[in-house]
Amino acid sequence: MSLLYEGKAKRIYDTDETNVVRVEYKDEVTAGNGAKKDKMTGKGRLNNQITARIFEHLSAQGIESHFIRQFSETEQLVKTVDIIPLEVVVRNIAAGSITKRLGFEKGHLFDQPLVEFFYKNDDLNDPLITDDQIQLLQIATIDEIQQLKQQALQVNKALVQLMDQMGLSLVDFKIEFGKDSTGTILLADEISPDTCRIWDKETKENFDKDVYREDTGSLIDTYQAFLTKLEAL
Amino acid sequence: MSLLYEGKAKRIYDTDETNVVRVEYKDEVTAGNGAKKDKMTGKGRLNNQITARIFEHLSAQGIESHFIRQFSETEQLVKTVDIIPLEVVVRNIAAGSITKRLGFEKGHLFDQPLVEFFYKNDDLNDPLITDDQIQLLQIATIDEIQQLKQQALQVNKALVQLMDQMGLSLVDFKIEFGKDSTGTILLADEISPDTCRIWDKETKENFDKDVYREDTGSLIDTYQAFLTKLEAL
Repeated sequence: MSLLYEGKAKRIYDTDETNVVRVEYKDEVTAGNGAKKDKMTGKGRLNNQITARIFEHLSAQGIESHFIRQFSETEQLVKTVDIIPLEVVVRNIAAGSITKRLGFEKGHLFDQPLVEFFYKNDDLNDPLITDDQIQLLQIATIDEIQQLKQQALQVNKALVQLMDQMGLSLVDFKIEFGKDSTGTILLADEISPDTCRIWDKETKENFDKDVYREDTGSLIDTYQAFLTKLEAL
Repeated sequence: MSLLYEGKAKRIYDTDETNVVRVEYKDEVTAGNGAKKDKMTGKGRLNNQITARIFEHLSAQGIESHFIRQFSETEQLVKTVDIIPLEVVVRNIAAGSITKRLGFEKGHLFDQPLVEFFYKNDDLNDPLITDDQIQLLQIATIDEIQQLKQQALQVNKALVQLMDQMGLSLVDFKIEFGKDSTGTILLADEISPDTCRIWDKETKENFDKDVYREDTGSLIDTYQAFLTKLEAL
């Protein structure tokens, strides 16, 4: 089947079914918008399996996504969606860019989860974007922005509970949404240690891509440990 | 009377009257958060007079501010307010930071005016801040944010009309708001070619601080020309 798109971490192929595509998770790992780059055998398999388990869990909680089913060790079938060019970030605890931008101390627990939007645009380096700017650029309407925030907070609630059962704190995560053939907004892309910041509740040890960003451990061992905890539930 | 505060471009002094302070406009001019700095004789007088005339004009249009009256060539009396630490920017035409951040072409006319907030914090370099971040930092409530946006758009409407009569386009401007002793939100700070980006309608020539930022002309001559146009109305 023909390759429709190749990104930093995934390839998307056409299928025989209408409005269904096959996503292949690659072994490439990048950080800093591609500034740091490596290939790690097993990463594609791990992120495919973790994302599949998480989307299945969300579906059981009544949160639909583009995910249909796992297809192979490194592939999954998903509904075709037009991705809305926003990275939707939810933060429970301050870490990463918000500590630099707004001066929060790393580890600061927010009174309530914060939703931020970043404009997906490599040339502009994915800038923070306000609700009014999103409307001006006609990326989404005010109603759609409200829907994205509500859905993001629902996903956050379900993921916080899930990770709590695994002995982990969900610090923050990035999700993306798309519109399906009927125009319905659906959770899309992936949810994995590549797109979440996750700390061990006791030791504060990272269970996410920060081990690669900050060179503090083996990415494959970390992601495997996360998948093992997830499958043990 | 005692000096209460000294900033980059103003000194604020106490007065005998309750809830009234005297603002002295200095001859200092800075750009790039203080990276570029000069002293220009006459700048304080010009910005004091321009701000006084503009606040008087806004008041006549029903838009109140902290401004009471001009006190001397370089000074004005204003109501004491607690400044809300937000720079409120209104944009009619793309120029400056938004062309770099979101990729708009300089000169692009927005379908409707855009209001942006920047967090007044020198250490953080006055970052763009979203409505949700403003609430999280407890800088303002959602109702206050809506009030700030509405008032900013009213000010924009009045200023666009005023400058139109002067043969000028109001590209964008920055205003600040404060709370008076009763908690009412009032337009404050200054409105001058230091805080506005203004183009001649025909020649697109700058009537603002960009002549200093970009070294394209005499700041004093430019501000004097603006005041002359304003007083000729």
